[in-house]
Amino acid sequence: MRLTLYTDYSIRVLVFLSAHPDRLSSIAEISQAYGISKNHLMKVVQDLGRANLVTTVRGRSGGIKMARPPGEITVGEVVRVTEDGFDLVDCGSCVIARACGIRKILKEATQAFLAVLDGYTFGDLPKGELGILDVLAAFPDVRQSIAKAECLPAETVT
Amino acid sequence: MRLTLYTDYSIRVLVFLSAHPDRLSSIAEISQAYGISKNHLMKVVQDLGRANLVTTVRGRSGGIKMARPPGEITVGEVVRVTEDGFDLVDCGSCVIARACGIRKILKEATQAFLAVLDGYTFGDLPKGELGILDVLAAFPDVRQSIAKAECLPAETVT
Repeated sequence: MRLTLYTDYSIRVLVFLSAHPDRLSSIAEISQAYGISKNHLMKVVQDLGRANLVTTVRGRSGGIKMARPPGEITVGEVVRVTEDGFDLVDCGSCVIARACGIRKILKEATQAFLAVLDGYTFGDLPKGELGILDVLAAFPDVRQSIAKAECLPAETVT
Repeated sequence: MRLTLYTDYSIRVLVFLSAHPDRLSSIAEISQAYGISKNHLMKVVQDLGRANLVTTVRGRSGGIKMARPPGEITVGEVVRVTEDGFDLVDCGSCVIARACGIRKILKEATQAFLAVLDGYTFGDLPKGELGILDVLAAFPDVRQSIAKAECLPAETVT
């Protein structure tokens, strides 16, 4: 069972922005921090904007930020926006679809899955010395920060 | 979010066998009932056998059946066997993986998902006139049975 890479990247963008609630961020620095292509991120950020999760400020000193405080955006809200549906199996091709009870069971399981994600906001991510928010806040020295937190040489963190 | 086609087919095989607890079934008839290729089903059945979910009886009058009564096999057990892991996102490529809290949240959500599936067995599938077990038990007239149950002409059920 997997979420799409698109959801993965969307979450990463919002994690980054959660670590920088007081300033605008750029797609270039998010791209550099995670090693994800800018082109991929541009599409992700555009769609997060449409979904009212990210605000874009245009102009020379522009950038992006969370549309609401991190504590007001749940992981469930993001996954619901970014995933291309939650029909876990393709019943459309199955001759017994309408009589089958499996779909109902999978739907109940999916609702339980989303209910957990609805219970966490981007404000709940770990803080502190080993926490992601502090690690990303230390950007552009992300790799160095992680290496330091894990007592590893920076060049081993790729 | 999707389960693999392999899980889909595995569930369908077990649904079919649940509808025929008192006799052996053949891959050919399951293939015909669902319109799935025999080659796909052979691999699925082989793996379900290894996982102690299906028993194969060899020989001319052989076939397959549930390894245990339908009420003793949960949907969760099957999905755990057939899905290729439950790492919903690929944290391996992410520089902040070890410091990130998202993985833990997704893991908790996945556990809630599986807990629901663990609560249902193949004995819980709907019975009665519109129930899948009765519909499949009427094989080889599956399409006719469904059409009858839904008051549709048989040829419209594909």
